[in-house]
Amino acid sequence: MDRDGEDARVARTRADVARAALEVLRSGGFDDLTHAHLADVAGYSKTTLYAHWPSRLDLVRLALDALGGWPHHPPSGDLRADLIGELTVFRRSVLDLRLDRVVFGLAQSATSAAAARLRDRVNLEGQRPLRMLLAQRFSGARLEAALSMLTGVVTCPSLLFGALPDDAVIAAAVDIVLSGGR
Amino acid sequence: MDRDGEDARVARTRADVARAALEVLRSGGFDDLTHAHLADVAGYSKTTLYAHWPSRLDLVRLALDALGGWPHHPPSGDLRADLIGELTVFRRSVLDLRLDRVVFGLAQSATSAAAARLRDRVNLEGQRPLRMLLAQRFSGARLEAALSMLTGVVTCPSLLFGALPDDAVIAAAVDIVLSGGR
Repeated sequence: MDRDGEDARVARTRADVARAALEVLRSGGFDDLTHAHLADVAGYSKTTLYAHWPSRLDLVRLALDALGGWPHHPPSGDLRADLIGELTVFRRSVLDLRLDRVVFGLAQSATSAAAARLRDRVNLEGQRPLRMLLAQRFSGARLEAALSMLTGVVTCPSLLFGALPDDAVIAAAVDIVLSGGR
Repeated sequence: MDRDGEDARVARTRADVARAALEVLRSGGFDDLTHAHLADVAGYSKTTLYAHWPSRLDLVRLALDALGGWPHHPPSGDLRADLIGELTVFRRSVLDLRLDRVVFGLAQSATSAAAARLRDRVNLEGQRPLRMLLAQRFSGARLEAALSMLTGVVTCPSLLFGALPDDAVIAAAVDIVLSGGR
């Protein structure tokens, strides 16, 4: 096989395994994301998986590649509308992409310093647009509080009750934060 | 062995296994809470465990018995102080009792309707004092929003970054919510 054919084959393997890794992380969590189980699901040999992605953290990274980052709301310049939009997109990602399970899986995987850094980087990046919006009104401890609170409007019902907030609850949260931030 | 001796032996077994179940739930999460692993950790036979607690959900219930409920702040009548007190006790429970891992374990275990009901009951009960305090100021969607937001001040940093908020962030969150609730 020539070099281009080899590259294409590696890229296809990588894409297949990454999709399967994301599927396993969503359905079974980090504990299910082993080389043996992933080899079964993706239809490749364990040897191939170990050769390209030696550690379980590599498998988590693959799953995150397949996810391609958290979706976000395109900002309009209206702070209230943009906060509601960002939380609505976040809620939709929990439903459509099972982002909640990815986040739980990352939390569960973070037993080494390298895995904790990966979790921190992914979550920091995911929260960034919300942080930028809130920084228009808040700073310091108040910014950290507002950021955790608005993230919590979506993550807490999901974590505690397997449920998601309706539109009225999201709007009420944004209004409480914005009127408390005056 | 007479009846009293038998009862005492069963109670001791139950207490031993419950403590071990909580320890396993905290250290390894729900996936580690199997009859085989718990039998090893608790020092009883698998047969004994299956005889008394046939399902994995029974093992989760045992762990929760050993936890004995979430600790709470005794209310003083000052709403701001009581909200800060309740969140501070919650933060301490995450540190001392690894309540975060119990909550993650419950979320992970909720793959059956019975397990989801158990999760909902435990979390509803845990949030109750915070809900009662916030109900002095909020109702409807605003109450749900405020409850998720203040729970999120502790759970979001823990879930996303393995970190906990400092006193200034907890106080800022309570102040934003109370001033937004006017």
